[in-house]
Amino acid sequence: MAPAFEHRLLPGADGGVVAPHNTGSTNVSGDDQLLLKSKVTVVGSGNWGSVAAKLIASNTLKLSSFHEEVRMWVFEETLPSGAKLSDVINRTNENVKYLPGIKLGKNVVADPDLENAVKDANMLVFVTPHQFMEGICKRLVGKIRRDAEAISLVKGMEVKMEGPCMISSLISELLGINCSVLMGANIANEIAVEKFSEATFGYKENREIAEKWVQLFSTPYFMVTAVQDVEGVELCGTLKNVVAIAAGFVDGLEMGNNTKAAIMRIGLREMRALSKLLFSSVKDSTFFESCGVADVITTCLGGRNRKVAEAFAKNGGKRSFDELEAEMLQGQKLQGVSTAREVYEVLSHRGWLELFPLFTTVHEICTSRLPPSAIVEYSEQKPNFSLLQGSINGVVDE
Amino acid sequence: MAPAFEHRLLPGADGGVVAPHNTGSTNVSGDDQLLLKSKVTVVGSGNWGSVAAKLIASNTLKLSSFHEEVRMWVFEETLPSGAKLSDVINRTNENVKYLPGIKLGKNVVADPDLENAVKDANMLVFVTPHQFMEGICKRLVGKIRRDAEAISLVKGMEVKMEGPCMISSLISELLGINCSVLMGANIANEIAVEKFSEATFGYKENREIAEKWVQLFSTPYFMVTAVQDVEGVELCGTLKNVVAIAAGFVDGLEMGNNTKAAIMRIGLREMRALSKLLFSSVKDSTFFESCGVADVITTCLGGRNRKVAEAFAKNGGKRSFDELEAEMLQGQKLQGVSTAREVYEVLSHRGWLELFPLFTTVHEICTSRLPPSAIVEYSEQKPNFSLLQGSINGVVDE
Repeated sequence: MAPAFEHRLLPGADGGVVAPHNTGSTNVSGDDQLLLKSKVTVVGSGNWGSVAAKLIASNTLKLSSFHEEVRMWVFEETLPSGAKLSDVINRTNENVKYLPGIKLGKNVVADPDLENAVKDANMLVFVTPHQFMEGICKRLVGKIRRDAEAISLVKGMEVKMEGPCMISSLISELLGINCSVLMGANIANEIAVEKFSEATFGYKENREIAEKWVQLFSTPYFMVTAVQDVEGVELCGTLKNVVAIAAGFVDGLEMGNNTKAAIMRIGLREMRALSKLLFSSVKDSTFFESCGVADVITTCLGGRNRKVAEAFAKNGGKRSFDELEAEMLQGQKLQGVSTAREVYEVLSHRGWLELFPLFTTVHEICTSRLPPSAIVEYSEQKPNFSLLQGSINGVVDE
Repeated sequence: MAPAFEHRLLPGADGGVVAPHNTGSTNVSGDDQLLLKSKVTVVGSGNWGSVAAKLIASNTLKLSSFHEEVRMWVFEETLPSGAKLSDVINRTNENVKYLPGIKLGKNVVADPDLENAVKDANMLVFVTPHQFMEGICKRLVGKIRRDAEAISLVKGMEVKMEGPCMISSLISELLGINCSVLMGANIANEIAVEKFSEATFGYKENREIAEKWVQLFSTPYFMVTAVQDVEGVELCGTLKNVVAIAAGFVDGLEMGNNTKAAIMRIGLREMRALSKLLFSSVKDSTFFESCGVADVITTCLGGRNRKVAEAFAKNGGKRSFDELEAEMLQGQKLQGVSTAREVYEVLSHRGWLELFPLFTTVHEICTSRLPPSAIVEYSEQKPNFSLLQGSINGVVDE
């Protein structure tokens, strides 16, 4: 347990930090007293948000540089029992709706009031569906500490015509704070039961802050590797869903292991090439990390993008994605299909369609311009692969 | 069909090339007449060798710079019918024993006489089990054309204490000729039925010769990418089998997708780090090719290394690999287990064990020094990963 004095380290919502009183306790060193403890709030409490809170809460109990309490903003819901979700989480220590059966840690406090949840925190963890992020950030303007640091666990930011609108940039720009990202092969339910997993932490510049975030998330079963490449890490999290659609088509066509591995590899290659074209700072090595190759593997083996695309190809493209999604996903929409459309728009706008035959073909299959079998008809587009290899000088290092 | 005059382009076994006679034909240009056509021999006629012969034979029919005929050395066997395997191949155009049901192309000529099979060829394709390679090369000394070029499709060369003994080097050194390699996510039976696949061609220096080999293997369903990195490509082909053992353990332990993807990623990382430590010329980008990430995927999803390792872990390591191999593989031995031992010896000899926790742990599990569950207990070895990331200065570029 952390020493008692930490509860007096309450930073003000104006961004200032209240210095600790001298406790007079012989257990507490002068250094500890001066240490300004970090306070973490998780914005979001879905499946992944709840697992993130659990990971973080296990660490704030152990690490003296953090307040023990982890606040978790809960979008309030009334459960079938009539009880409020936040009340149940605080009473049972479980998110009974989104992560049933898993204790979050007694130091996780659910808070349905967004502004109250964030006001004391200097470390903000954003983990909501991406379509809510703009609204949440707008509500938080002027309501957070000025010294706050953010991290985004939100996958699937939007790619606009002029380029990707990244969630980390949205947070940085709207709130005027620095924002890192955490992505990777992270099926939340597997981490919840403490199966060995990895993640990639992407940061901009400050290595000290990076180390603090890595410390906050790392556990014996959750290995976090830091890379100085926010854009590369974040683009991996989005673009992999387009590759998963391609992999699903291959499954539906029953093409075998060579073909599936080839499509996953070509997909990873196009992720890398597009990321580097969009942001020259993106590093090749990022794609060897969990957010790159490992997340492509996980998403192309399991996952709903792959599954619905498989059904689409099995039906020879005769039933639309809209129809299959409605039937298979209970109203959820596939990120991969919309990301493929957005990527296509960027490629088309910039004259890059021929450089990205896999991304381009996925969209053309999703919109029924090409049959599903086109996904493995790269042979006729071979010159395009050569283009990708050779002609983007210096961008793709081969 | 190629013009008739090509059959007169017979190079001598002494390494000289017989210049073509002027045919006088109006169809044949002066350039064509002067062109020295290449003649290909495939040394080996197993499953992969037969598929390679089929790929090559389809191209020599189309490409005017090659002799149509592809000679395939067959290790002669008497079939249950009493017929000789080579006779049956030449009569039926099928390798009824190792690739039944697939026509190889009428221009494939099976030849049970090794020396006769190679004597006219200037392009030698080696594709036999790796343990036969040394003996074959020794038999061929002085029996091949001096201008011959070789390619090795042999996976699983041996790693000796002092470093890997690569098959391409063995060929180069014993025969005094240049040797390239072809590796990748290549399950032979899938390529035989013309499912879309890829491969990586690794060469040393001469780009013109590289282009010729790529041309010889490429088909609309078999996409070959050339990289100037023989050692990187060849090491991928061996080291992936150790990763497949690790992946099999994870399957046997039923650890889920995150864990499996993490182990495959860490395996790819160790493949890359070890290859770069052994040969400073090895390129990072090679591991993004088919021989790297794609072959790791294929081998860790299917394949016998993975399968037997899964059974080993399911039995909690209580039944030995020898016992499981005998039961599951009809007398074949797993390359991954012996490669893991050889890699361990190299690492131990050079003081690198701590830098390669996955490779090290695989061997220690195979030899029952650790339980199968140790494969996912990296957490306690975390400093080793940090070492791998940071302290091999410049070798791993992160």
